[in-house]
Amino acid sequence: MSLDTIPRSAYNEDHEAFRQSVRQFLLKEVAPHAKQWQEDGIVPKSIWPKAGEVGLLCPTVPVEYGGMGLDFGYNAIVDEESAYYGGAATGFSLQSDIVVNYLVSYGSEEQKKHWLPKMISGEVITAIAMTEPGTGSDLQGMKTSARKDGNHYVINGSKTYITNGQNADLILVCVKTDTEIQPAWKGMSIILVEADREGFKRGRNLDKIGMDEADTSELFFEDVRVPMTNCLGEEGKGFIYLMSELPQERLSIAVSTMASTQKAFDETVAFARERIVFGKPLLDFQNTRFVLADIKAKLQVGWAHLDWALNRHYKKELTPEEGAAAKLWHTDLQWEVMDACLQLHGGAGYMNEYPIARMWRGARVSRIFGGTNEIMKELIGRSL
Amino acid sequence: MSLDTIPRSAYNEDHEAFRQSVRQFLLKEVAPHAKQWQEDGIVPKSIWPKAGEVGLLCPTVPVEYGGMGLDFGYNAIVDEESAYYGGAATGFSLQSDIVVNYLVSYGSEEQKKHWLPKMISGEVITAIAMTEPGTGSDLQGMKTSARKDGNHYVINGSKTYITNGQNADLILVCVKTDTEIQPAWKGMSIILVEADREGFKRGRNLDKIGMDEADTSELFFEDVRVPMTNCLGEEGKGFIYLMSELPQERLSIAVSTMASTQKAFDETVAFARERIVFGKPLLDFQNTRFVLADIKAKLQVGWAHLDWALNRHYKKELTPEEGAAAKLWHTDLQWEVMDACLQLHGGAGYMNEYPIARMWRGARVSRIFGGTNEIMKELIGRSL
Amino acid sequence: MSLDTIPRSAYNEDHEAFRQSVRQFLLKEVAPHAKQWQEDGIVPKSIWPKAGEVGLLCPTVPVEYGGMGLDFGYNAIVDEESAYYGGAATGFSLQSDIVVNYLVSYGSEEQKKHWLPKMISGEVITAIAMTEPGTGSDLQGMKTSARKDGNHYVINGSKTYITNGQNADLILVCVKTDTEIQPAWKGMSIILVEADREGFKRGRNLDKIGMDEADTSELFFEDVRVPMTNCLGEEGKGFIYLMSELPQERLSIAVSTMASTQKAFDETVAFARERIVFGKPLLDFQNTRFVLADIKAKLQVGWAHLDWALNRHYKKELTPEEGAAAKLWHTDLQWEVMDACLQLHGGAGYMNEYPIARMWRGARVSRIFGGTNEIMKELIGRSL
Amino acid sequence: MSLDTIPRSAYNEDHEAFRQSVRQFLLKEVAPHAKQWQEDGIVPKSIWPKAGEVGLLCPTVPVEYGGMGLDFGYNAIVDEESAYYGGAATGFSLQSDIVVNYLVSYGSEEQKKHWLPKMISGEVITAIAMTEPGTGSDLQGMKTSARKDGNHYVINGSKTYITNGQNADLILVCVKTDTEIQPAWKGMSIILVEADREGFKRGRNLDKIGMDEADTSELFFEDVRVPMTNCLGEEGKGFIYLMSELPQERLSIAVSTMASTQKAFDETVAFARERIVFGKPLLDFQNTRFVLADIKAKLQVGWAHLDWALNRHYKKELTPEEGAAAKLWHTDLQWEVMDACLQLHGGAGYMNEYPIARMWRGARVSRIFGGTNEIMKELIGRSL
Repeated sequence: MSLDTIPRSAYNEDHEAFRQSVRQFLLKEVAPHAKQWQEDGIVPKSIWPKAGEVGLLCPTVPVEYGGMGLDFGYNAIVDEESAYYGGAATGFSLQSDIVVNYLVSYGSEEQKKHWLPKMISGEVITAIAMTEPGTGSDLQGMKTSARKDGNHYVINGSKTYITNGQNADLILVCVKTDTEIQPAWKGMSIILVEADREGFKRGRNLDKIGMDEADTSELFFEDVRVPMTNCLGEEGKGFIYLMSELPQERLSIAVSTMASTQKAFDETVAFARERIVFGKPLLDFQNTRFVLADIKAKLQVGWAHLDWALNRHYKKELTPEEGAAAKLWHTDLQWEVMDACLQLHGGAGYMNEYPIARMWRGARVSRIFGGTNEIMKELIGRSL
Repeated sequence: MSLDTIPRSAYNEDHEAFRQSVRQFLLKEVAPHAKQWQEDGIVPKSIWPKAGEVGLLCPTVPVEYGGMGLDFGYNAIVDEESAYYGGAATGFSLQSDIVVNYLVSYGSEEQKKHWLPKMISGEVITAIAMTEPGTGSDLQGMKTSARKDGNHYVINGSKTYITNGQNADLILVCVKTDTEIQPAWKGMSIILVEADREGFKRGRNLDKIGMDEADTSELFFEDVRVPMTNCLGEEGKGFIYLMSELPQERLSIAVSTMASTQKAFDETVAFARERIVFGKPLLDFQNTRFVLADIKAKLQVGWAHLDWALNRHYKKELTPEEGAAAKLWHTDLQWEVMDACLQLHGGAGYMNEYPIARMWRGARVSRIFGGTNEIMKELIGRSL
Repeated sequence: MSLDTIPRSAYNEDHEAFRQSVRQFLLKEVAPHAKQWQEDGIVPKSIWPKAGEVGLLCPTVPVEYGGMGLDFGYNAIVDEESAYYGGAATGFSLQSDIVVNYLVSYGSEEQKKHWLPKMISGEVITAIAMTEPGTGSDLQGMKTSARKDGNHYVINGSKTYITNGQNADLILVCVKTDTEIQPAWKGMSIILVEADREGFKRGRNLDKIGMDEADTSELFFEDVRVPMTNCLGEEGKGFIYLMSELPQERLSIAVSTMASTQKAFDETVAFARERIVFGKPLLDFQNTRFVLADIKAKLQVGWAHLDWALNRHYKKELTPEEGAAAKLWHTDLQWEVMDACLQLHGGAGYMNEYPIARMWRGARVSRIFGGTNEIMKELIGRSL
Repeated sequence: MSLDTIPRSAYNEDHEAFRQSVRQFLLKEVAPHAKQWQEDGIVPKSIWPKAGEVGLLCPTVPVEYGGMGLDFGYNAIVDEESAYYGGAATGFSLQSDIVVNYLVSYGSEEQKKHWLPKMISGEVITAIAMTEPGTGSDLQGMKTSARKDGNHYVINGSKTYITNGQNADLILVCVKTDTEIQPAWKGMSIILVEADREGFKRGRNLDKIGMDEADTSELFFEDVRVPMTNCLGEEGKGFIYLMSELPQERLSIAVSTMASTQKAFDETVAFARERIVFGKPLLDFQNTRFVLADIKAKLQVGWAHLDWALNRHYKKELTPEEGAAAKLWHTDLQWEVMDACLQLHGGAGYMNEYPIARMWRGARVSRIFGGTNEIMKELIGRSL
């Protein structure tokens, strides 16, 4: 039972060497604490600099900003290993796979010089605030606004379901800098808000079905003043920036999802081997074997597709629609597998002390976040 | 949105009048406290006598033992209303639909006279202890034993996943009074163990995926001595007794399940009407309507079947296999509906503050308890 | 293996006596010829008077028009028995369950007196022509028109997918008597066209996936003149008439569907008992048992619901939406069962010589005709 | 709409050039005749030499036996193009992907020299006879025997479901040369039987649900004498030989299946764009878009997996279990897609004149032949 036995085609030897060091870190610094963090409802900030030290954070940042200038495969490996061996949603992938790209791609030289080294070292934890109460995946319907006042923006509004919400030191806030313009997306901008700005307030660390250790939170902005130099890239281009980063965001979800799916399967095969029912191992029943065989076939297909998508992404060929398809398919698979695996656990599956219960609860969000799977179908459907 | 608009054929006017009084009780005494009880992980014992006072407990017990001598429809109404309006798993149905029948059917005159009135009044809370760590649905594999010593049994063993485990005053414990006999089921007996017997110890109130307020627990028996008069019915007939009560037990699950399924649907229709996405109600999207229409059709089918099963059960015609089919089908439906309804909630669905999240978590056990759905298929399959 | 062992609640003793005579007729006059008729692509007209003689046709027609004035249960029994024992789509149900009601409900006294006795005796075979090439379930988009010319209508247009298309002596043709009016449905009327009218031409007997013996056809109307007295009921009310008959039409589909589903199951259980694979009966494999057990549970649910719907329909309480739900659910079930049963047959299932292959091919139309299941969801969805 | 727009990773430029010539051949020599061949229930033998001439047959045969010595990618291209553009099951893939390998891998020098050139040229059509009436996928249960008599075998028995059964000039017959030995598979051998041997008789060209043009047949052997030199490889190794070729056989099915799935999707998108319902294209309905978007995502995944499997097979790394998983997954996908696509066609989908109806009927065999999907699960399950 390990990720190492799966024949992959998206990684080279350097990637695989990195994988081993990531795994060591996770087994030592993350996995033993997962249970405590779940009870706490948050991952301690102290884990971030440790992760930074061993190179887990933002591996793709160019060398001139203190990064390693590596390809997305290194991110993917952190995602896979975290999902399989870490047992806790650390929030690293949000920073490394998503937020950092906005800064690298659209940030000013000053912003990059200031923030990137700290994001790499783990000194700074970031978040990106899109969703609002009552809007969901409909970004254009957002209400949070940034009014100009001299050379400042004054931000008002509220956000919710924000990953890293309690821990974040820096938040990329999606706002409307123009609430009148039509179409509405032309009025959207992304503004960097430091967590110590006056008027910024963290709301509840939300009580979720799973991912107990993730500090998914509400955020409130009440007359928060930030200098206009905090705008990311150009005003009014926020929506375009968001769209440009979606394929990688969705691929990132597919990566984590695939590894956790494999984990659930491996756990369940082990359980079915050991568990004796009616005098023989659960695995010896044809139904058990059929259920697990069907999953095994799907895992084979899933890894093949994931590597295809990674390879395409390395070459910048993965289209937004292909990214959406990856997110849709892998998260649907994850759920099918998680639920079948839980069922094979019988009563044990319903008990939080069993890993399958925690994984299952955590997995339920996959079809919802990063754009619901219905939104994915909408996006793919438009291309027909 | 109410259970009253569904055309039913299993109830008469008296049933429906009873329904209203049950509902009043639940809305006043249960629903407002559900959240607190969920946090507490247990329902207070004080709710039981209140429920007893208004006739919610054990309505089928014959008049000579202090009961009302009513049909199972009254139980079903308590189950439906609890699932739809109560919002908390009180444990009443275990006592009324399951445990009490063992006493009525197989108890000695003395046992009946002693326990039945207290079970009706809510003075005594009961549990039945079948499952053991490592056995699951395989009852014949149980290890808990009752050795004879003079005119006492000495019970040793442990049980798990026991509903009402912390609250129970009286536990019907399934044991092996003969561990050698073949086939093994001939050695099984049911023994009444009062919770204050020496050597009896409650274990953990288990941390579950859902049904937070249910005190599903471990129980331990270490040289627990009970007089031989505590044996229910005849020694060695425990397995037969268990089998005889299964149709009603499974029908009871189907009833609760169906009502909670309807509840999830009604909640979601209301949510989809109010929730605005991309400028119009979620309900105005064809996908939403198709998903909900398909569920509505299935609910129609479900209620029709439930009433068919109830009517058959009133006439003692419901076979064990039909009971198993009801449990299988209704719990499968419940899950399909719960999950689709949660998905339509988007991000909100993943937040425990929304009723759908709680209902969804609670519902996951339905395909597992009362015999897993795989066991149901085994049972039905044997009749082919 | 028979329909008689299923516990039903929609039929009384008279119904059941009728069932036996229907069955005798089918086993003698229909089943032995089914294979030939399938090769011929049509059922011979000569079977109709034979059916009429034993009372199979139009049992609900009032006594004053030569009928028996019975309830819809008699129709349902003919449908069930035909699907289970007949092995051929005779077209009887179109006449008895659908067409005849238009005449009874909306026909003029003259029309009733002329046509009803002949429909009951089987002297006249009828059809109803709704669908047009390119319109499908969208009735309001129809193009066939009836222009008034003196006291005649002149009908032009074409119809397709018309059951009994080659055999029909009388066709109820849905036309637009007003092509301008808005909303469009206000311009629809139903006109009786005798098959010997000049300008009426039968097109191809369509080559279908299954139901080989059903003469589903194209019909062409080129300046077909019929007297205005051939209009059914009032001009401009055609759409309303169609809507009024839909619940029964859809219930009728649900009835036939349910019986054929049971038949497929019974055939497959028998096959799995006899078929030896890897040294033991196919039925002894857990996967086979699980698949069949799951189906058996669903059949139990299906019959319960069907009887619920029949009982409601007897009392005129079945709503259009409930009828749509019945059509949707039962035909979805039918397909799921047919396909699983075929699969259990292995290679034999793919061979037309096995009954399952023919039933499976025939069943594929159920989710399409009588309004596609997507239309059913649309209809149910509107009620939310 | 074409196979050329799909990003593939299993083919180089030479493959793609070959693809174009294959396509030209199919569009000219196969597609225009498909309808006629379907009516005939057989493909004319004359098409084989034509196919041989342009290099479609057995491209992997080594140069020393008159072949081109190419990789399996060339076979796969013939399979894909045939499924997408040919519109007829020619039987080529059985010869090129399956039968020829037995000769290349296990044939004697004499057998190779005699048969391979003729198989490449299309002069000889081959079949392999495994299945027997009543055995299905259980090869070890076969009854056809080859008794030794001097330096001849005398073969007796019957086979069924044999592809190319009417056209075959040479049949590789699986027999028991030892009916006593245990385990039974050690008694199995493969014997080459020329179609003109006395005592060999072709049975019925079977009437199937679909693939009308494929001459799937029964074969009978009554005291058929063949010289012992007709044994393929070693006596008693037949089962091992069969097992060794299964990964490629199953990959071959996956390849054809995937291309036909894409074809069904492309046809349906085109249909949904043109078909007007309720005043707008069918594609403009959200349900249509969602169904097709979901399929599109799955097609993306499917092609990625197929290329992964092809690349592994080129390197001889594809395991039997991975081949089984490919067969299982791709054929399950095919069916899901075919059925959803047919449904979107409405009534048209049920008419054999529409391509979707023919493809749908043809596709139903995929989950059955080449080992049923239940057998695939059995095989994968054993590896757990």
